[in-house]
Amino acid sequence: MSKRKILIQLDGDDLPSVFDRVVAVDAGAEEIFSYGGITPEQVRDLVYGAMFTRGPKDLKSTAVFVGGSDVGAGEKIFAEVQKAFFGPLRVSLLLDCSGANTTAAAAVVAASRHVSLEDRKALVLGSTGSVGRRVARLFARKGAEVRVASRDVARATEVAEEIRGSVDGVRIQPFATGEVDGLRAALDGVEVVVAAGGPGVELLSLEERERLVAQPMGHSLQVLIDLNAVPPVGIAGIEPTDAAVERDGVTTYGAIGVGGTKMKIHKAAVARLFEANDLVLDAEEVLDIGLAL
Amino acid sequence: MSKRKILIQLDGDDLPSVFDRVVAVDAGAEEIFSYGGITPEQVRDLVYGAMFTRGPKDLKSTAVFVGGSDVGAGEKIFAEVQKAFFGPLRVSLLLDCSGANTTAAAAVVAASRHVSLEDRKALVLGSTGSVGRRVARLFARKGAEVRVASRDVARATEVAEEIRGSVDGVRIQPFATGEVDGLRAALDGVEVVVAAGGPGVELLSLEERERLVAQPMGHSLQVLIDLNAVPPVGIAGIEPTDAAVERDGVTTYGAIGVGGTKMKIHKAAVARLFEANDLVLDAEEVLDIGLAL
Amino acid sequence: MSKRKILIQLDGDDLPSVFDRVVAVDAGAEEIFSYGGITPEQVRDLVYGAMFTRGPKDLKSTAVFVGGSDVGAGEKIFAEVQKAFFGPLRVSLLLDCSGANTTAAAAVVAASRHVSLEDRKALVLGSTGSVGRRVARLFARKGAEVRVASRDVARATEVAEEIRGSVDGVRIQPFATGEVDGLRAALDGVEVVVAAGGPGVELLSLEERERLVAQPMGHSLQVLIDLNAVPPVGIAGIEPTDAAVERDGVTTYGAIGVGGTKMKIHKAAVARLFEANDLVLDAEEVLDIGLAL
Repeated sequence: MSKRKILIQLDGDDLPSVFDRVVAVDAGAEEIFSYGGITPEQVRDLVYGAMFTRGPKDLKSTAVFVGGSDVGAGEKIFAEVQKAFFGPLRVSLLLDCSGANTTAAAAVVAASRHVSLEDRKALVLGSTGSVGRRVARLFARKGAEVRVASRDVARATEVAEEIRGSVDGVRIQPFATGEVDGLRAALDGVEVVVAAGGPGVELLSLEERERLVAQPMGHSLQVLIDLNAVPPVGIAGIEPTDAAVERDGVTTYGAIGVGGTKMKIHKAAVARLFEANDLVLDAEEVLDIGLAL
Repeated sequence: MSKRKILIQLDGDDLPSVFDRVVAVDAGAEEIFSYGGITPEQVRDLVYGAMFTRGPKDLKSTAVFVGGSDVGAGEKIFAEVQKAFFGPLRVSLLLDCSGANTTAAAAVVAASRHVSLEDRKALVLGSTGSVGRRVARLFARKGAEVRVASRDVARATEVAEEIRGSVDGVRIQPFATGEVDGLRAALDGVEVVVAAGGPGVELLSLEERERLVAQPMGHSLQVLIDLNAVPPVGIAGIEPTDAAVERDGVTTYGAIGVGGTKMKIHKAAVARLFEANDLVLDAEEVLDIGLAL
Repeated sequence: MSKRKILIQLDGDDLPSVFDRVVAVDAGAEEIFSYGGITPEQVRDLVYGAMFTRGPKDLKSTAVFVGGSDVGAGEKIFAEVQKAFFGPLRVSLLLDCSGANTTAAAAVVAASRHVSLEDRKALVLGSTGSVGRRVARLFARKGAEVRVASRDVARATEVAEEIRGSVDGVRIQPFATGEVDGLRAALDGVEVVVAAGGPGVELLSLEERERLVAQPMGHSLQVLIDLNAVPPVGIAGIEPTDAAVERDGVTTYGAIGVGGTKMKIHKAAVARLFEANDLVLDAEEVLDIGLAL
């Protein structure tokens, strides 16, 4: 008889996420061991409990999910989990703090339905948050020419440097988009725009959007994706429920429109954990799962 | 395939109640997410996790149970859960802190097996506790003439006012029953008496009980219910296991006798949560479930 | 329909053990209620929740597991659980803090496969830890002549006294084995040696081991068991994976070799809990389960 599928939820927040637990149930995890307020120091003993209880052929029925609202804290937990492994004694794990990996993957999956990303110009507005950084990194991995934007050019530059350090041969450029001139420069010639700013922050006004598509020599814009569901949305004129809606000749997605794909990816990623005992699912692997759906 | 039934247990006590978890399992909840030490501030994000993970037709497979020993704290949590909902995005919920709703409902169900409550005189001894208040409120809703008793008339008056504020057209009167005269006045002409005092506190002595049923012109008393299982019991001469036992021509129930009904109601209420996504089960709704069993 | 099997995990550590939860799942527990950071004061209400929710014939489907890394703290919790019971209102429980009971039982089961323990000389090196104490106690119960060793004779004496106080007619003697003379005295004529020291502490060197089996008049040593998996191991020359391996004419077991038996015993003990509602499984009962496998 095969072992019951156990997902160990390590959450940096005091209360382990209900959201992640429900998704885990719906993804087929049969037992969820939920731990909140997890610090990196506590990880090793918990992971040993996963490694040393089942035989090698059953290790794939135990897996670890790292979550919580603080992505930086989660990345440390994620690293500690991997440090605890030795040799073939390991279990699969997934990082999805604040839903950042699955959301970023869903945005890139949405864009890739309409444009091949290779060598295309892709702009990420609000690129310094955890979702924005991941969207930019994933675009870079897919061979796009990436533009990372922020009101603060120093922060955008920091994101660009981080991605240069992790993706070989990447073409990436920071933009300061707080002022209209910088925004227009960032938008010039782009094919894909993803807005990944905070709730209630408009990053692209209706005026600038209309100006962009009304250029006398035509425009290259094909896809506009807004990941903010809280009004005002990040890209004016997009409805949160937009899912491949045509607006002014441009395909648009809103946060809820992308959310459906995010949920499918999240569930598929959790289900995938139980297919082998050596998977490490960070943004890139989550994107591959999303692209294969 | 229908979704697994998830019950989210929000408990104000540091350790989420084992009692409530066992009942939830036996009521058919397939997954229980237990959270202890919950404060009202923490409720929203947890409830969002319930609201935003499953599609509209599956929302009825997720529900919330609010428990803990502090009824006041639980009522605040219960209110916060409802505030988190918007529109059809909601899940069903049940309040049963300290078992007060299910116990009160069970007492009223027991009484109603023997007397129609409408226009009958019903006395609640020890009415200022969480169970007593609810018994009085439920009697009031069912149209009884309610007498709420306490050693301290000010506190009984406060209970009467509270119920006047929540039940239209209620007839309710406070009594100070610490002295024998007040007790005799409260008992005069009553048909149902429920004792809902603390453990080990006798509220009705054998002497007064015998005096009541030995009145030369006959008496109206039909049902005596004691909700205290710890000796000395609240109504002298009642055995905790009494369940519709005839004593001196009066039908009696003890705490354990009522407890069986309470457990059935508790389980039925949890099971009911999964039949729709918009149920709000407080004392009244729990009583209706009990009366329909 | 029979009730679902609920195991209530009371763990003295802040985070309830993943190890114990996985084993509980694999042993057939259908619901695990995990509580961490448990203090003796918190036990009663939790156990009441187990006692007062299911009818007498279903009480065997609820059980309690006491764990955590601190054996002394766990023993207090274990005692409190039993104090909460009254009469037939009780559930079965298992103590296995730090795996000490199942590990000690596994060591004694391994030894008893090769030697009848009655009247045999058995030496426990590193006898003052929680596993060592239990191995010595179990050897004593099985009628062996027990030698308990420590670098510190006062501590070994304390262990000997403790076991004298709990096992009638026991023959037990303390040894100081920090110096080679004391070690040789302890080893003289023994048939079984179990090393239960801390990780990375060598208690028996290769030189002394070879000297023991090379005695001109022959030797009585039959079984060497080392419970330390972290190098250097406790008995030089034993591999952690040894499981009844013949070395110099002596049967040897290493920590991983014993570990397989420990896991089987642990699972069998948890499964046993659900066969009756009145079992109290401490080291002795766990050993009996192990001997019957």
